[in-house]
Amino acid sequence: MIYNFKNDYTEGVHPRILDALKQTNLEQHEGYGEDRYSREAISLLRHKIKNPSADIHFVSGGTHTNAIVIPSVLKPYESVISTFTGHINTHEAGAIEHAGHKINVVESSDGKLSCKSIQSVLDAHTDEHMVKPKLVYISNATETGTLYRKNELETLSRFCRSKGLLLYLDGARIGSALCSQDNDLTLAQLSQLVDVFYIGGTKNGAMLGEAVIIINDSLKKDFRFHLKQKGALLAKSRIFGLQFVELFKDDLFFRLAEHANAMALKLSRSIEKMGFQFLNKSATNQIFPIFKQDVINRLSKKYGFYVWENMDDQHAAIRLVTSWATKEKAIDSFIGDLETGF
Amino acid sequence: MIYNFKNDYTEGVHPRILDALKQTNLEQHEGYGEDRYSREAISLLRHKIKNPSADIHFVSGGTHTNAIVIPSVLKPYESVISTFTGHINTHEAGAIEHAGHKINVVESSDGKLSCKSIQSVLDAHTDEHMVKPKLVYISNATETGTLYRKNELETLSRFCRSKGLLLYLDGARIGSALCSQDNDLTLAQLSQLVDVFYIGGTKNGAMLGEAVIIINDSLKKDFRFHLKQKGALLAKSRIFGLQFVELFKDDLFFRLAEHANAMALKLSRSIEKMGFQFLNKSATNQIFPIFKQDVINRLSKKYGFYVWENMDDQHAAIRLVTSWATKEKAIDSFIGDLETGF
Amino acid sequence: MIYNFKNDYTEGVHPRILDALKQTNLEQHEGYGEDRYSREAISLLRHKIKNPSADIHFVSGGTHTNAIVIPSVLKPYESVISTFTGHINTHEAGAIEHAGHKINVVESSDGKLSCKSIQSVLDAHTDEHMVKPKLVYISNATETGTLYRKNELETLSRFCRSKGLLLYLDGARIGSALCSQDNDLTLAQLSQLVDVFYIGGTKNGAMLGEAVIIINDSLKKDFRFHLKQKGALLAKSRIFGLQFVELFKDDLFFRLAEHANAMALKLSRSIEKMGFQFLNKSATNQIFPIFKQDVINRLSKKYGFYVWENMDDQHAAIRLVTSWATKEKAIDSFIGDLETGF
Amino acid sequence: MIYNFKNDYTEGVHPRILDALKQTNLEQHEGYGEDRYSREAISLLRHKIKNPSADIHFVSGGTHTNAIVIPSVLKPYESVISTFTGHINTHEAGAIEHAGHKINVVESSDGKLSCKSIQSVLDAHTDEHMVKPKLVYISNATETGTLYRKNELETLSRFCRSKGLLLYLDGARIGSALCSQDNDLTLAQLSQLVDVFYIGGTKNGAMLGEAVIIINDSLKKDFRFHLKQKGALLAKSRIFGLQFVELFKDDLFFRLAEHANAMALKLSRSIEKMGFQFLNKSATNQIFPIFKQDVINRLSKKYGFYVWENMDDQHAAIRLVTSWATKEKAIDSFIGDLETGF
Repeated sequence: MIYNFKNDYTEGVHPRILDALKQTNLEQHEGYGEDRYSREAISLLRHKIKNPSADIHFVSGGTHTNAIVIPSVLKPYESVISTFTGHINTHEAGAIEHAGHKINVVESSDGKLSCKSIQSVLDAHTDEHMVKPKLVYISNATETGTLYRKNELETLSRFCRSKGLLLYLDGARIGSALCSQDNDLTLAQLSQLVDVFYIGGTKNGAMLGEAVIIINDSLKKDFRFHLKQKGALLAKSRIFGLQFVELFKDDLFFRLAEHANAMALKLSRSIEKMGFQFLNKSATNQIFPIFKQDVINRLSKKYGFYVWENMDDQHAAIRLVTSWATKEKAIDSFIGDLETGF
Repeated sequence: MIYNFKNDYTEGVHPRILDALKQTNLEQHEGYGEDRYSREAISLLRHKIKNPSADIHFVSGGTHTNAIVIPSVLKPYESVISTFTGHINTHEAGAIEHAGHKINVVESSDGKLSCKSIQSVLDAHTDEHMVKPKLVYISNATETGTLYRKNELETLSRFCRSKGLLLYLDGARIGSALCSQDNDLTLAQLSQLVDVFYIGGTKNGAMLGEAVIIINDSLKKDFRFHLKQKGALLAKSRIFGLQFVELFKDDLFFRLAEHANAMALKLSRSIEKMGFQFLNKSATNQIFPIFKQDVINRLSKKYGFYVWENMDDQHAAIRLVTSWATKEKAIDSFIGDLETGF
Repeated sequence: MIYNFKNDYTEGVHPRILDALKQTNLEQHEGYGEDRYSREAISLLRHKIKNPSADIHFVSGGTHTNAIVIPSVLKPYESVISTFTGHINTHEAGAIEHAGHKINVVESSDGKLSCKSIQSVLDAHTDEHMVKPKLVYISNATETGTLYRKNELETLSRFCRSKGLLLYLDGARIGSALCSQDNDLTLAQLSQLVDVFYIGGTKNGAMLGEAVIIINDSLKKDFRFHLKQKGALLAKSRIFGLQFVELFKDDLFFRLAEHANAMALKLSRSIEKMGFQFLNKSATNQIFPIFKQDVINRLSKKYGFYVWENMDDQHAAIRLVTSWATKEKAIDSFIGDLETGF
Repeated sequence: MIYNFKNDYTEGVHPRILDALKQTNLEQHEGYGEDRYSREAISLLRHKIKNPSADIHFVSGGTHTNAIVIPSVLKPYESVISTFTGHINTHEAGAIEHAGHKINVVESSDGKLSCKSIQSVLDAHTDEHMVKPKLVYISNATETGTLYRKNELETLSRFCRSKGLLLYLDGARIGSALCSQDNDLTLAQLSQLVDVFYIGGTKNGAMLGEAVIIINDSLKKDFRFHLKQKGALLAKSRIFGLQFVELFKDDLFFRLAEHANAMALKLSRSIEKMGFQFLNKSATNQIFPIFKQDVINRLSKKYGFYVWENMDDQHAAIRLVTSWATKEKAIDSFIGDLETGF
């Protein structure tokens, strides 16, 4: 196989992180988040979001993060609103329901939540015979590569606050979103519009690790108890700290996302030029071109990817994902093969 | 108010049950389901369904029953398939999710589940990143008054067995379903087509109480532990036993349901004759006529009912529910008022 | 068998309650706690405890009540402190842990909790690697028939408040406790010393039903959501209301408990006079005399009771429970048989 | 500080693991446990335990592992038996109860479980008003440094099987146990005596990672669903695979544990020679010498450790933990300081 476009976690970790692990390896540090590097990373991230009082914790993966944050925010009878395609609704093996909470699912054509769809959930929940919607879950970038622009997120944020709803942003691919050419939000602005969010490291250069950032004071108390009870406090927590220090001390995180986006953009522009359609208009590191079945078959012999959605009997959309580690020659090869018909 | 058609639990209990309670009141009996009358009721019900090895237990209400039966059947990562209108999805305050299980919701125009819709859920759940659908939940009569005919339930049952799915029937209104003029199923036949179901007493003459009937041997073990752990083992369980003995020793249960259905039928036929439309074709004790808003306003001054669904700006469907206790003169009064325009 | 002393729920319900059910049976009422009689009962109970703003709800049994109240009070990582003999620790099939909470168990020679034992739990729980003790669970009367005197409850209450702990009193046998000759607390005084408690109806004249009384404002919000989600909202809730109206409108509740206590006292005094020892000093409706094995064998042919604890090879303590319905001649018969050696 | 003896996770990871990460870093691999190195590690471990059909999975930490394995084995009403000092009972923030299961706690003077104490739990659990004990949890080495000898584990295993109980061994420090001079068990023998266990990597040279090994066929099904639902499936699972390949391909794992034990042994022998007592007789990498308070104060200025238990007003036992990374000069320094009185 020439290159695997299946996911943004197929390669390992940015080399600088491995170097940092090596250099500090035999230092002795406290565990469970109380090490020096975790504190340093927290300090860096607080600075980046211009919020010195944000609570910041590290968790090893996205599903685990969602399964800890969401129940920590909700009372047993409260629910979370999500699009149908939201990661918590489709790809977390029922983790949120397992933790006791209903997901109020709404349809969405672009993977984004609108105030109107949230209002429709509120309208349908009127008394104690039903759950009480309390949290709004969005992803940025979304699971289908789209993103929230500043005015969209502002509108959503205002709406949630006016309705007494909390807003949680799943940032598994927040790097790609914020570095998209379509983006007009900064990390600091985004952080002010939500109650809690996380910055995904796993899909943007880290070995593992997501940084949970709690903005709303009322959600901060005793969060470490939630982490411990769910098995998320890592003994050698220095690993989290070191990674986020490397990723954020000189904005490596954003440069890695820019690279992933640039690779995806080159790919999508070339595919578009050849006249192919796309499932949607993504400006992040996931793109969804539509090909005939025989093209897909031929591509699949040289490239890894998922068939995302069957469009009709003869066409399907596939998902191509780029990452910080995707080499331009892999892109060129794919484009070349598509142009020449192999 | 002349009559309240809001629900089938607005009156108390069939007088024969009160008499039985009185006659046996000072007898001493074991508690928690081990009393003589509970055993007698179990024996009677086993006889009715022609299944001497069925496991039978009593629970005080329908939501509690669903919240005990469904988790008792599922492993933590397994899910239950239901229509959107299924009681577990809309009116149980998230009890199933609170117990840890996702509900895979499918749309349905008549409140009934089809094999096709179940298959669509199965098709979408392919690996451990998603829940594993295992249980199919249906209601008979459904929440919108429709019912499953024999061939429909047989088809569904066969389908579930061929796919390794379990079938659970919520019988909160099973009396009304089985006594409907559209029904061609017996209680015994129905029982053979499902893995577990319950017979609703609360909505058909009892003070409280639903009889859980476990047909599938693999679901029987240790069910009393589930009951106790969920707080469902009633100390004075004789109350359950006595009620079900009275309801089933001479088929009073069915006569009560026949009366409720007859009242609903008289109501719906008369309304139909006057030219009104209905939300759907119900042949049970819940009917959903569509009236203009001003008619609804006038009716609401003399009768209790819920506005079920707004059809357009000027029309809405209301829900009228009859019960074992509904007097014919209440029906006549409603019809008269509707005819004369008050 | 002459009489069954096994429990205080072996007989049915006080006749006045059956009469009230009969008289009101065909009235139409709202369900799920919104009926007139529930409101009337709530009003009566508020008056009894001299607290017009207490939140009051009805649940069908004690285990269910504990399994709803305790999780409604706690965050996921918070725990409840109980004696080893506490009902929640031994006879609820793990309902509290099933709802997600650890019970911090302390030993106690008399079934009562002391400040010292609570402090020992607090001392052992210092960080997020352990649960956070938050709720103190006591029973009055306790599971072994003892009771809290006024100064004991005041001390405990003050201690809890000083430590930020909440205090919950399980009143399954609160009638017997408050009507004991050793008691110096009123219901109103007791209510002021706790954050939440319940008045047990099942074991003192009701058919079923416990009244949950929430004193602490911070615990009141959305309690009906908890009730619904756990399947505790009863459709024909009038049944709860009617029972508590009958029990409290003229203090029938206390007269019934006085009778049960009087029967137990007559029994224990007579047994004591004959020179037998007791497991403890109970002044409520449960007594625990110690007999030789052959005496127990002979008694068991004519009377029902549980063997509570083996004292040595030849002696055991048995539990004798009296109730509102225990007839004096059953007591006389038991005493006579014990005196004459049958 | 000269050296921190607080824990066995104060340093990073064995250098060979970092090298392996570096060498393979830009290879592309599937995620979520389906990468080549995870498969290779599984193959190696199966070979080590001489059981080609064992199911093996990797989880990032010990608490998370326990919180996944234990609920995966139990039905909702089933409980797990543990000593009071068991990690699940004291240092997991109630994770097991949070997952719904009661821990039946028994006292133990040496941190080990005996058949007698298990039988006492079984004797006390007789019906559905109580939980049903089903799983036995032991740690090897235990939380207090002791270990199970072959005949002890055989006896326990036989007892559990005869009683229908499952046996789970927490191997957070299994390396230290199996490499102790007191040990007479092989890893393969141990594996045959339990139903499921885990090999702790975090505390013996890994960066993070525990290998769950399921021996009993009935516990294998769908385990990956449990992992995913609890957030334990790591995207870049190659990290787990690579670490366990390095640790087991040439028994590095055991050499690391031998070193840790040798360091602890040197420490304990020297301390013993100086006439100090110990809390217990540990032959693993945790030792618990008892010192006067002023000695502890002086030691704490140069060395890190936890005060484990106050023995009397003037004496306390401290815990000293060694690891694969502990340098002999740190041991010599500690001994020297203790001898000279600083």
